[in-house]
Amino acid sequence: MTNKYSIILGNLRKPCERFWKGYKDNPSSEEMLDLAVKKIPHFQGIELVGTWDIRPDNVKDMKKRLTEYGISCSSIIPDTFTNKDFGKGSITNISPVIRQKAIDYLRLMSEIALEIDCKIVNLWLGQDGYDYLLCTDYDQERGWLKDATMLLAKEFPTLKFALEYKPKEPRNFSYHARMADTILAAKETGCSNVGVTIDTGHSIVGGENVAEAVVLAKRAGDMLYHMHFNDNYGSWDDDMIVGSVHFRYYVELLFWLKRTNYQGWLSMDQYPYREDAIGAISESILWLKKIEQLVDQHEIELEKLISLHDAVETSRFLRNLMA
Amino acid sequence: MTNKYSIILGNLRKPCERFWKGYKDNPSSEEMLDLAVKKIPHFQGIELVGTWDIRPDNVKDMKKRLTEYGISCSSIIPDTFTNKDFGKGSITNISPVIRQKAIDYLRLMSEIALEIDCKIVNLWLGQDGYDYLLCTDYDQERGWLKDATMLLAKEFPTLKFALEYKPKEPRNFSYHARMADTILAAKETGCSNVGVTIDTGHSIVGGENVAEAVVLAKRAGDMLYHMHFNDNYGSWDDDMIVGSVHFRYYVELLFWLKRTNYQGWLSMDQYPYREDAIGAISESILWLKKIEQLVDQHEIELEKLISLHDAVETSRFLRNLMA
Amino acid sequence: MTNKYSIILGNLRKPCERFWKGYKDNPSSEEMLDLAVKKIPHFQGIELVGTWDIRPDNVKDMKKRLTEYGISCSSIIPDTFTNKDFGKGSITNISPVIRQKAIDYLRLMSEIALEIDCKIVNLWLGQDGYDYLLCTDYDQERGWLKDATMLLAKEFPTLKFALEYKPKEPRNFSYHARMADTILAAKETGCSNVGVTIDTGHSIVGGENVAEAVVLAKRAGDMLYHMHFNDNYGSWDDDMIVGSVHFRYYVELLFWLKRTNYQGWLSMDQYPYREDAIGAISESILWLKKIEQLVDQHEIELEKLISLHDAVETSRFLRNLMA
Amino acid sequence: MTNKYSIILGNLRKPCERFWKGYKDNPSSEEMLDLAVKKIPHFQGIELVGTWDIRPDNVKDMKKRLTEYGISCSSIIPDTFTNKDFGKGSITNISPVIRQKAIDYLRLMSEIALEIDCKIVNLWLGQDGYDYLLCTDYDQERGWLKDATMLLAKEFPTLKFALEYKPKEPRNFSYHARMADTILAAKETGCSNVGVTIDTGHSIVGGENVAEAVVLAKRAGDMLYHMHFNDNYGSWDDDMIVGSVHFRYYVELLFWLKRTNYQGWLSMDQYPYREDAIGAISESILWLKKIEQLVDQHEIELEKLISLHDAVETSRFLRNLMA
Repeated sequence: MTNKYSIILGNLRKPCERFWKGYKDNPSSEEMLDLAVKKIPHFQGIELVGTWDIRPDNVKDMKKRLTEYGISCSSIIPDTFTNKDFGKGSITNISPVIRQKAIDYLRLMSEIALEIDCKIVNLWLGQDGYDYLLCTDYDQERGWLKDATMLLAKEFPTLKFALEYKPKEPRNFSYHARMADTILAAKETGCSNVGVTIDTGHSIVGGENVAEAVVLAKRAGDMLYHMHFNDNYGSWDDDMIVGSVHFRYYVELLFWLKRTNYQGWLSMDQYPYREDAIGAISESILWLKKIEQLVDQHEIELEKLISLHDAVETSRFLRNLMA
Repeated sequence: MTNKYSIILGNLRKPCERFWKGYKDNPSSEEMLDLAVKKIPHFQGIELVGTWDIRPDNVKDMKKRLTEYGISCSSIIPDTFTNKDFGKGSITNISPVIRQKAIDYLRLMSEIALEIDCKIVNLWLGQDGYDYLLCTDYDQERGWLKDATMLLAKEFPTLKFALEYKPKEPRNFSYHARMADTILAAKETGCSNVGVTIDTGHSIVGGENVAEAVVLAKRAGDMLYHMHFNDNYGSWDDDMIVGSVHFRYYVELLFWLKRTNYQGWLSMDQYPYREDAIGAISESILWLKKIEQLVDQHEIELEKLISLHDAVETSRFLRNLMA
Repeated sequence: MTNKYSIILGNLRKPCERFWKGYKDNPSSEEMLDLAVKKIPHFQGIELVGTWDIRPDNVKDMKKRLTEYGISCSSIIPDTFTNKDFGKGSITNISPVIRQKAIDYLRLMSEIALEIDCKIVNLWLGQDGYDYLLCTDYDQERGWLKDATMLLAKEFPTLKFALEYKPKEPRNFSYHARMADTILAAKETGCSNVGVTIDTGHSIVGGENVAEAVVLAKRAGDMLYHMHFNDNYGSWDDDMIVGSVHFRYYVELLFWLKRTNYQGWLSMDQYPYREDAIGAISESILWLKKIEQLVDQHEIELEKLISLHDAVETSRFLRNLMA
Repeated sequence: MTNKYSIILGNLRKPCERFWKGYKDNPSSEEMLDLAVKKIPHFQGIELVGTWDIRPDNVKDMKKRLTEYGISCSSIIPDTFTNKDFGKGSITNISPVIRQKAIDYLRLMSEIALEIDCKIVNLWLGQDGYDYLLCTDYDQERGWLKDATMLLAKEFPTLKFALEYKPKEPRNFSYHARMADTILAAKETGCSNVGVTIDTGHSIVGGENVAEAVVLAKRAGDMLYHMHFNDNYGSWDDDMIVGSVHFRYYVELLFWLKRTNYQGWLSMDQYPYREDAIGAISESILWLKKIEQLVDQHEIELEKLISLHDAVETSRFLRNLMA
């Protein structure tokens, strides 16, 4: 396997929760980039969050820096989730003015993606959803969701729009909630450059088995465009170091990424609230590298195990991986 | 609204859990039918579980009884979940012999459906899924799932095959898990007579908002074929009386069923382990009738509320419904 | 029932989540107080968050204002959760310097409580817990938890220290997680002025039935000191309007509060991220007033229902409460 | 560490769920015992389920067999959960006749424990709880729970009564739900021979960190009497092979069992619905033996890690355990 590793630059910023605003400093994007390159192993790509890291005014400079570091821009993540205007929805906002503003912003970010030679626009539409029942016309809003996604996809046919799903948070219900509904939303657009991003933690919170989500995307027509990695306890997007809670999920996931011939990035996405960010992100990569190696070494055994349907054999295999 | 109510005959049988085998008697299907007609209000349809209630040997007699009672057979539910052979999967079993057996059984049940003038075959493939990671070739099994479903749908073009989803139980992961993946599975067949059954409890356990699932099915092309009703605490399919835990979900659901012009049945599906079954099923119907009336009376207000996005207004409206 | 209603002043501030920083203005405590008195019905008490609303420099002024409004200070909530120093724990921090700082701060807040004639110090120790396994000496930290709580309780024997539990958030695991462990933590101190606060949403997320938690506190020796009210979908502390998801929980809860002769406050605690705060808090109070009235009117029937163990009868009763 | 391993004989029986009744044969207790001794590694103790495996009529014979095999009876598990009479509660049943019957049965099982030199009576009161809100007098039933437990504990002062908790299933809410409430229930009896059993799966479903539950029991006064091991996905008691989902939980657990000087049994408790039971139980023991060895070898590092509060260091340590 020759997986390409990536990180999200913003993960090095000061993370805050709704109570505590954090203790870390907030370095500039340029400082974080320099730090990442010096300290984090094995990565070749970087995701830039729109507005925070990348804007019309700094795109040239950022492109130059990336070139010098020999790092690709693995994706642009437009910021529709912290933007003051979009707190009640971006492209599904009931206000046509806000919807237009969101489309304009996403267009701008898409242009930046082109300019910086980035192939993927990762759309995590975190504020597009709802909180209370009986307050929302789901059909109408899903119509807006489709229209805006289609508009962008058609306007930028050389870009891939990767819809990142998450069942809840910040809204109590998200429109892009799990793999299958996001495939449906992508297919509704009729555009072949709209696909899906799996965030492993979002998938676990959604009650999915991540590897099966990969298979769903494969069957739907190679719709897995991008991957975010982190771990959690199962009920919430704790955004922890890979392997902190689960292990077997990642083994199966990397096996199926290989088997379905996934060509995209493995990008780390964490919220190291109280941990050293460099260390936490590095650990995730190192866990995945170890698992990648394990999958490569034991590919034939793994193929056999998935044909056997024998939990005892699978348990024995995994047990023997322990020192 | 002129909703058609239905019950599942088997809900009157002695329910057991994995520990306790229950205290009730197990009346015959004929006795249960007679009891239901005499005691349960407002229902016009009955779902018959394959093998338990309906078999080649009794289909003529059952049809005659239903005619005499003036009751329709709202659906046939083939029993692939208690059948000894199908415990490790029916149409996705790794054994080709078992897969064929499952197809033969489903064909038999489809013929019975035709014979008894039933339009819906409700496929709850409870045993089709998996328990442990790294033991299953998801792609292969989903292929079998598609093939068998397609085969049946083509063989019986006048029947509707309604795939009932549920995230887990009895298997730790089900193939038909939530609305969107079940729509995808239905669409994979390419057959226009394959759709979806919502069981409200399964939907809640799956983390869905049930009304939004209705909208997904509508947008996918009128793919909601059938409805099962019950309630639970959110983490497990407790199969309780409607309204025991949730209320607002059902109001929104009935509103959207009306708005999307749902023409199918509202069928009760419970497991009254320790309750009087007649009473428990009757209560669910009476709750739904009350909510139906409420939706009819307040339709214009509800339309306004879903356009407002104002949780305070919605709260006020619902509060004022209380005596 | 003559329940005393209260609100948390801070609920009128601009709420933010970890992504979006909100759109509201941040009025001063004095402005919020004035607004609350003018707009929110039925409340007689107000909870003040330490540092935000109440400090040595404004305690005299605040006391005077409350007196003029005829409002009691129902509790002081020391802010150990947004304070920069306490993000990795307050009285259980591994740094003795921080632990001392936390104790000093809690002492200061207790003195303020005395000064403002407030009987309850509500200790929500949100940052006291842990995130990753195998990083924490639980026994040692619980020892610090006990010691600090005991120290305060002994120093301020006329105050009641109400420990507010919550299973997770902001830490992945909290020390005060549910009713029973918080009772144990309170009892460990050996002080008769240490008890528990129920936040209904925290209790629901914790998998408790809130009314049963009330009974646990009663049996442990009248250990329920304080109540916070809100609602959620069951998996997270969504901090919504009372009645938005659940209804029966609150009926049973108010019934048992009456039956156990609870004399404390019913205080609203919400996070109206995208709602009008005044409206959202008022709605919660109005729902509870309606339920209170219902419990008073039907007390004898409710007594009978809890002796009957008949879910059908209980369903019928509740159904008949609907208009 | 010199942990003593045990199995539950009944785990070799045919397991059934509420739908499927299983495909296995049901060997006699004597056959299962013989099979276990021949096939399962490392175990020295066996738990016998009352009525199923052990009754007045076979206690002498069973004792003789165990002696010949050199196996201890690690616990007696009275069957209050499949008994037809106790489906709506055993010692908390609203019928005084049933409550007496339950006490009589538990007394009989306690006498058998004495006769077979078993020190632990493991009380899993699975049917003692409730399903619907507003149907139960929790205070009264907890009174009965206390009284019956106390009665037994006083009558059999040389036995230890280990209360096994579980949040739900078969009842929607159990009285013994989690560690802390079960400690409270045990303490209410005032008897020093009433303690707690942790089932690792029940603890995980309850949202606990199992190792922290061990610490709670230690602090309450060495109240952990017994341990059942299995694994699950977090939302339900899937009763899987240890290590199938989680790993770090077990490392931390075994570390804390050693650190708190736990002297009881590590007993396997699974439901191998579709797996080879001998293989599944053996796997759990072998995983735990491997983890035990790991904890022994790395004890000093683990001590250091729990003092460090550094998730990155802990991650690195665990990663390096992988081959």
